[in-house]
Amino acid sequence: MEMNLEKPYVIGLDMGGTNSVLGIVDQRGTIKAQTVIKTKGYPDVKEYVKAAVEALQPALDVVGGIENIKGMGIGAPNGNYYSGTIEQAANLEWKGIVPIAQLFEDALGIPVRVTNDANAAALGEMTYGAARGMKNFIMITLGTGVGSGIVVDGKVVYGSDGFAGELGHVVIDHTEAGRSCGCGRKGCLETYCSATGVARTAREILENTTTESLLRKLDPETITSFDVYQAAEAGDEVALKIFNYTGDILGKACADFAAFNSPEAFVFFGGLTKAGDYLMNPIRKAYEDNVLCIYQGKAKLLVSSLNGSEAAVLGASALGWE
Amino acid sequence: MEMNLEKPYVIGLDMGGTNSVLGIVDQRGTIKAQTVIKTKGYPDVKEYVKAAVEALQPALDVVGGIENIKGMGIGAPNGNYYSGTIEQAANLEWKGIVPIAQLFEDALGIPVRVTNDANAAALGEMTYGAARGMKNFIMITLGTGVGSGIVVDGKVVYGSDGFAGELGHVVIDHTEAGRSCGCGRKGCLETYCSATGVARTAREILENTTTESLLRKLDPETITSFDVYQAAEAGDEVALKIFNYTGDILGKACADFAAFNSPEAFVFFGGLTKAGDYLMNPIRKAYEDNVLCIYQGKAKLLVSSLNGSEAAVLGASALGWE
Repeated sequence: MEMNLEKPYVIGLDMGGTNSVLGIVDQRGTIKAQTVIKTKGYPDVKEYVKAAVEALQPALDVVGGIENIKGMGIGAPNGNYYSGTIEQAANLEWKGIVPIAQLFEDALGIPVRVTNDANAAALGEMTYGAARGMKNFIMITLGTGVGSGIVVDGKVVYGSDGFAGELGHVVIDHTEAGRSCGCGRKGCLETYCSATGVARTAREILENTTTESLLRKLDPETITSFDVYQAAEAGDEVALKIFNYTGDILGKACADFAAFNSPEAFVFFGGLTKAGDYLMNPIRKAYEDNVLCIYQGKAKLLVSSLNGSEAAVLGASALGWE
Repeated sequence: MEMNLEKPYVIGLDMGGTNSVLGIVDQRGTIKAQTVIKTKGYPDVKEYVKAAVEALQPALDVVGGIENIKGMGIGAPNGNYYSGTIEQAANLEWKGIVPIAQLFEDALGIPVRVTNDANAAALGEMTYGAARGMKNFIMITLGTGVGSGIVVDGKVVYGSDGFAGELGHVVIDHTEAGRSCGCGRKGCLETYCSATGVARTAREILENTTTESLLRKLDPETITSFDVYQAAEAGDEVALKIFNYTGDILGKACADFAAFNSPEAFVFFGGLTKAGDYLMNPIRKAYEDNVLCIYQGKAKLLVSSLNGSEAAVLGASALGWE
């Protein structure tokens, strides 16, 4: 007979604007079962929770039912860890403050915790990924925007209000030339170092130079960071310049971030990291060239070791172990 | 008969390059007895410890002896909390790594902890001062340099190596025009917002403008931030401009720092804060004008509430309660 002293699974919910992915995860970070529902189309959040719980049933059956689940974690836009709510999320249809943790706790009878996507990613790396065993590190997510999750003494920093860790909105150019950001300000890191920032850099460099480039064959308005990566793979000079520019800014920014918590590592995650060393080498160079001497040679600059398509669910699920 | 369940006093040692101040402090932050020894003149650190312990005796007698002391805290240049050592401190005569906590533990038979001056200041504010009851705040010390102590969840952030919290060396000007810093780099916050940074700004503005100013009567090479304060008190336009320039840079920097730990407050300490609203008003304006909207109107921008001459000893002593 098997002894189950500790419940062996957790549920992770990665809530995106369009889809919600639910996974049941074991302690090694293996997704044992997974299901997807639409996030949109439930004007009443209670209907959304009901649909999610129904969709979960077959997955729960795979692992022997809810009695084997220790807890649930949710990664959601504007998820607030302290209150268990989603607050004023721009790309969700529920307005105001949504008590999402309480709703799932009521429906499932297990502890439920919420945080935002980047904090969930940090927890995922610490629990199953590149930051296993680390107590002080900074997670940087490079997607449509730039997100961050900061870990101090083995805990994600939530700050006074649950909204700490927005390093994508540190201003790296205070001049009038700083790029306009979706937050209403200018010069934020994410306007340079997100996937959209890279596309913006590509358009700027193509416009302001005459160097031949494979990228000139594309419509500048629809250029993506993946196009830039493909051009870099083909040895395109302009593409390499774009990644050097991006990595230089990001490496300098991380050098400043080190002064906050002197991290063991920075872990980078998201679509842009597919560029690999085209991006990581300039980040590493700018970091070491610019960081304060007492931090030199200390922090590792790593790419997430989690499978990209699973990382968000794994990150959310990591909250379920708390 | 009085019950003494908890030992009622701690020892604080504020170790400066020239003098060392030792104080015995109660839980309210009252210094019950104090003594001073030279820091210089003891080539062997053991002789320094011996002199400090001897000098402490009369103070210990005032509070009923060492059996009433819970612990000792030391604020020292390059003090490392994790190892209890002072490491490669430029302005102390002991080279290499000095096991200062162990030496005092052996001599006094009580627990001893070490940290650097700015972290000690943060602990002092949290224990006895303006940050009492706060769990998330940032201490900024404005002296010859700019130091910082960052508090997350009620604990000072020491990071992976004990050297976290060097916000004075965040680079705020990455261009060639960035001011040279003692750390060997350019554009660090402390080259603008320390007392010496203010004097540098004064010299620059006096040189590059022709506005009449009381400051023009002084030798530019010996101008101090206190001269600038006195001129501001007299309504001097250039002096006000200097504080506006300084506060603007510091407020913008703090707006970026908020993205780390979403603090309840910033607490400013040190000689420059004597400038009061001449400095604090531009800091507050630049902070609110530049901080990300989710943080707006949340953090208090405060001046230390501790008596300046006592603050360093109080800060160090706060470590003794741990």
